[in-house]
Amino acid sequence: MKQVSIIGIGLIGGSFALDLKQHIPGIQITGIDQNKTHLTEALTLGILDQIGDLNSLKHSDLVVLAIPVNAALEVLPQVLNLISDQAVVIDMGSTKEAICKAASTHPRRAQFLATHPIAGTEFSGPSAAIHGLFKNKTNIICEVEKTLPALGELVLTLFKTMGMHLRFMPANDHDKHIAYVSHLSHISSFMLGKTVIDKEKNERDIFDMAGSGFESTVRLAKSSPDMWTPIFEQNKVNVIETLTEYIQNLNQFKAYMEKDDFDAVHNEMKNTNHIKQILKGIA
Amino acid sequence: MKQVSIIGIGLIGGSFALDLKQHIPGIQITGIDQNKTHLTEALTLGILDQIGDLNSLKHSDLVVLAIPVNAALEVLPQVLNLISDQAVVIDMGSTKEAICKAASTHPRRAQFLATHPIAGTEFSGPSAAIHGLFKNKTNIICEVEKTLPALGELVLTLFKTMGMHLRFMPANDHDKHIAYVSHLSHISSFMLGKTVIDKEKNERDIFDMAGSGFESTVRLAKSSPDMWTPIFEQNKVNVIETLTEYIQNLNQFKAYMEKDDFDAVHNEMKNTNHIKQILKGIA
Repeated sequence: MKQVSIIGIGLIGGSFALDLKQHIPGIQITGIDQNKTHLTEALTLGILDQIGDLNSLKHSDLVVLAIPVNAALEVLPQVLNLISDQAVVIDMGSTKEAICKAASTHPRRAQFLATHPIAGTEFSGPSAAIHGLFKNKTNIICEVEKTLPALGELVLTLFKTMGMHLRFMPANDHDKHIAYVSHLSHISSFMLGKTVIDKEKNERDIFDMAGSGFESTVRLAKSSPDMWTPIFEQNKVNVIETLTEYIQNLNQFKAYMEKDDFDAVHNEMKNTNHIKQILKGIA
Repeated sequence: MKQVSIIGIGLIGGSFALDLKQHIPGIQITGIDQNKTHLTEALTLGILDQIGDLNSLKHSDLVVLAIPVNAALEVLPQVLNLISDQAVVIDMGSTKEAICKAASTHPRRAQFLATHPIAGTEFSGPSAAIHGLFKNKTNIICEVEKTLPALGELVLTLFKTMGMHLRFMPANDHDKHIAYVSHLSHISSFMLGKTVIDKEKNERDIFDMAGSGFESTVRLAKSSPDMWTPIFEQNKVNVIETLTEYIQNLNQFKAYMEKDDFDAVHNEMKNTNHIKQILKGIA
């Protein structure tokens, strides 16, 4: 692998470029992005070797899509049309069913691999790129059987070199589980932030009284709406299901409080403390 | 100040003892706790100089209540009965209206100061005690005008020595604001944990797919039910108000998704991104 094109030089695309440079000496990375400022920034930061466009894709051995999931649906077929017969294309989006469907009827379906590295921060843009972001993170691989074995192997070996743990799963299973362990967290965080901002017009009160607990719970409310809106749109059915259950649980908790049933309140918390054991496995 | 008694040698009481030892050479710290294992542990960890009981309080210059807020309501009047005329008592609970009310009719009201250092972690017990926990943290002081000026000054100077920022507020204002910036975060986190655990019976899926975002949002669900149940009970009215608004916001977000109004979804998140600026001030 000598030539890699990365479409979308943000936190994920930029961090992937940094890891590529670390693990593959001499690799040439071309960046493609609608945001010219991000491209210039990424060049200056040494994340990219050159700036390209879709026409330069034919020289790439690997093309990485690290753009919002709605844009990925449009760009993937174009990319598959433009690459060489030996190249492989991967996407890294937080939804997998729609992108797999978008690829399904393309004559070059076998040159595509759907991936979702569970990594990131609440920040965005190339300046948010981090060395080693993917180390010890899980990467969910979908429909691996539809990718040419040699190309799949090339990409999976690269992921393992970067320190990722691979997990294989049907796209619809991915979208269902990820709604619970990622998408719902973002909504709960955004709505918590909204509730507090709406109430506390006097921001000095938030600033003074909020501790690290609040900061931690509301951290994801800093995330990019441009990235997250299309994720919620593509995973609408699953996300609504998680929201319905979450709201039911909150209503139940509130009802216990209204009835002064604080034994039940205690119980709810005690049962959920079990999350300690589950989280021990998360880096 | 030579003799300090700390009732409740957990995360908060233990961390306070560590800071006292750092800032007041020669200070003697007596620990009082129903949990004998915690007392022995705290002695071994060097947090305490000796173990005491309520009868030893008469020798204390300062008595610190760092116990669950329901226990504090019962213990405070007993403590005020037992101390010397020169001593001062402080509590550190997360609710302030009930404890101020419990103190209000006591003949020694002026020897009590209600405080709430906004500091802590999701862990508990003396082994969770941390050096410098209170540094750069806000401490909310309620009804300072009801405390003897000399005793109030003694305690406030101590807090400042430990690096705390002091803020003065009526007890009911404290309870209202803290419901938004602390108590609601805990419920949102607990119910998020519950929703995911209930759904993902196969824990391997949570373990593999959950990233740092989920971990951050659900961190507070590790907190102690024994500590938090009485907080929710004492701050019931305010907490129910925050829960009602939070659930309304979640329902609104869900309704936008159901109507496919993703412009509104985007807007909700964009407006809440403003939390970035607010959080910049939180350590």
